[in-house]
Amino acid sequence: MTEIDTQALIDTEAFLADLYALREIGRFRTGVHRPTFSAEDMESRRWLMAKLEACGREASIDGIGNVLGRHRGPGPHLLVGSHIETQNEAGWLDGALGVVAGVALARAGLPVDVVAFADEEGHFSGGFLGSRSAIGDLTEAEIDEARNRTDGTPLRDALANAGLAGLPRMQLDPGRYRGFLEMHIEQGTQLESAGLHLGVVSGIVAIWQFRIDFSGNQDHAGGTTMAERRDAGLSAVRLLAAIDREFPKVCGPRSTWTTGRITLDPGGFSIIPGRAEVFFQFRDVSMPVLERMEACLEALVRESNRRELCPATLTALSKAIPAPCDPALMRALSEAAEAVSPGGWQVMPSGAGHDAQNVARILPAAMLFVPSIGGISHHWAEDTSDADLVLGVRALGAAAARVLR
Amino acid sequence: MTEIDTQALIDTEAFLADLYALREIGRFRTGVHRPTFSAEDMESRRWLMAKLEACGREASIDGIGNVLGRHRGPGPHLLVGSHIETQNEAGWLDGALGVVAGVALARAGLPVDVVAFADEEGHFSGGFLGSRSAIGDLTEAEIDEARNRTDGTPLRDALANAGLAGLPRMQLDPGRYRGFLEMHIEQGTQLESAGLHLGVVSGIVAIWQFRIDFSGNQDHAGGTTMAERRDAGLSAVRLLAAIDREFPKVCGPRSTWTTGRITLDPGGFSIIPGRAEVFFQFRDVSMPVLERMEACLEALVRESNRRELCPATLTALSKAIPAPCDPALMRALSEAAEAVSPGGWQVMPSGAGHDAQNVARILPAAMLFVPSIGGISHHWAEDTSDADLVLGVRALGAAAARVLR
Repeated sequence: MTEIDTQALIDTEAFLADLYALREIGRFRTGVHRPTFSAEDMESRRWLMAKLEACGREASIDGIGNVLGRHRGPGPHLLVGSHIETQNEAGWLDGALGVVAGVALARAGLPVDVVAFADEEGHFSGGFLGSRSAIGDLTEAEIDEARNRTDGTPLRDALANAGLAGLPRMQLDPGRYRGFLEMHIEQGTQLESAGLHLGVVSGIVAIWQFRIDFSGNQDHAGGTTMAERRDAGLSAVRLLAAIDREFPKVCGPRSTWTTGRITLDPGGFSIIPGRAEVFFQFRDVSMPVLERMEACLEALVRESNRRELCPATLTALSKAIPAPCDPALMRALSEAAEAVSPGGWQVMPSGAGHDAQNVARILPAAMLFVPSIGGISHHWAEDTSDADLVLGVRALGAAAARVLR
Repeated sequence: MTEIDTQALIDTEAFLADLYALREIGRFRTGVHRPTFSAEDMESRRWLMAKLEACGREASIDGIGNVLGRHRGPGPHLLVGSHIETQNEAGWLDGALGVVAGVALARAGLPVDVVAFADEEGHFSGGFLGSRSAIGDLTEAEIDEARNRTDGTPLRDALANAGLAGLPRMQLDPGRYRGFLEMHIEQGTQLESAGLHLGVVSGIVAIWQFRIDFSGNQDHAGGTTMAERRDAGLSAVRLLAAIDREFPKVCGPRSTWTTGRITLDPGGFSIIPGRAEVFFQFRDVSMPVLERMEACLEALVRESNRRELCPATLTALSKAIPAPCDPALMRALSEAAEAVSPGGWQVMPSGAGHDAQNVARILPAAMLFVPSIGGISHHWAEDTSDADLVLGVRALGAAAARVLR
């Protein structure tokens, strides 16, 4: 199959028409409002099922809201999709793009199953309900406990209202698929600022999150000499300066680390802080890099405790496992990207979480990014040019064709 | 006059009895509650006037609540005193000690005027009402505008309720006095931790207070590479680390500097701070040292603005003038301290503000500190041993006798 074949295969006008039609369901300014299991969300799922049937797929919805459009013929098969609900009053492409791209590949006659996972956006506590359910990682007990983050509605009530109570939950069959492809907007500015059109995702970073507490002595800033002080804030600044100095020596090429909050207690002009609390996290796609950064952080805290009068305590709050993308699928996406946009693409990690990170636990998975204008996402102004959307779906189709060859 | 004479001169039993009697007016647990112009505060001022008359002084109260006990004989004279109101539910010695010590010197026959200034504690906006009024630094317009910080009562109403409306405000006559002596508790732990009993104050430090604002770009901590970031919090940490490194090179022997608050905006785990705000202050008794520290701070901010992507703005919020103590009065206090407690005293700055800093603008002024047990002050548990109180009043009397010789 050549590049020319691929261009012929995908009906990019129908693809854009589908995207624009879906945007009208729950429209909010230039974006949409389709929170999980709302009337608008369920309408979009029914709209999708009709589209899938029209493309010859056997469409179904399961007990957690996942929509699957199953190819009726023999394999090999690929799974293609994303999520269809949105953040509140948010963008028209986040999720929807990957689902509608799946429809476009189905319409082109590729033997793909198309999926729209439920609640990637985490309207219900826990998040990623649909993709976690589909890989067997969501228990009934979790469903019993989950509540809507905005209005507190129990998930069970929301499922019943949506007509989904009692339906079986589908499980993905790893034997059926060569892999999972998810097309998504970047939600950052890396492609735009590099003047590129496509990003082949190397993996979805894991976030390792820590709280660092420093315990000093609250004192009056006038009566206490520098020598007598146990200034928790100063110990915190010294540790953060050491992290700034040492992390570049152990990080990977695309690692990030962030201090999001520093709280000095009690926080008055004339009071030496008795306690300091720091929110710190780092991200990478590589487990060895994550472990190296953690070892560096632990060593710096130990050094702080040797030198400083204010004991520092390091508490790991969460340590996720990174989801590297499948090398063969990445190679297919890279070749397809080079075919449709020569020199206009790059390999890059995903700093945000996606359904693909869950699917990757049971299937080879990979992702393709298109640029976000101004990096805007989780806002109704989110957008991508039609030209980049079309480049993306053509590359996705070409990659799928290569994998299924 | 020898040390023996001085010991004979001061009736330390009467001095302690006065202190204990005054503690009963507005008693709260082991401390007192005598906010400015409250019934208890006015009762303590009337108690003081009676004491002063009994010691042969001509006692008066003025239109801002200052009580003066004027020696009836010829000079030379010294002014001795402090304030008599307290912080809310606070200690029995903060202020009262210096006033009662003045009574003790008057009882001993020394030609001293005794003063109790009003509202050193700043119950009314502005603070230091009495000593500022007595040196001609308080305008009628300021009195019109001042409000009680706790309940909002206008100062004019409080003065009227206290029966002080319409009374003239006394002005200190610099020609009448050789100087002003204020005995006070340390409100810190320096004397206690050094095992000393008396502190001869070298001066009252000035506080120079700054806000430093950093302006960056708020971004998602996942999608933004380290190179793309404009992390306002990181720029703040780097400046604070530079201050920690450079200030010891320019400071004086007893300078202090304090970062009381660091606010990163918006303060989430996964959000690169778009703005950072730092509360920073330093203190010293020497104007050249203060100016050196400010020049260093300004140079570090300039260097930050050369190196960092997040512009830093330095705003001076207040720059007070330090009040060095009078060398001749300090010498008299030092000789007296050595006489009553050989090797048991030191010269030290006052990190907190006192009425003496205002009086020093028109008269030679000096202060004597006694230890605060555990450094506790502005709390009802504030205390000093009777032995140290007695050492203090004996040294104060001996110093006054030397100055008046």
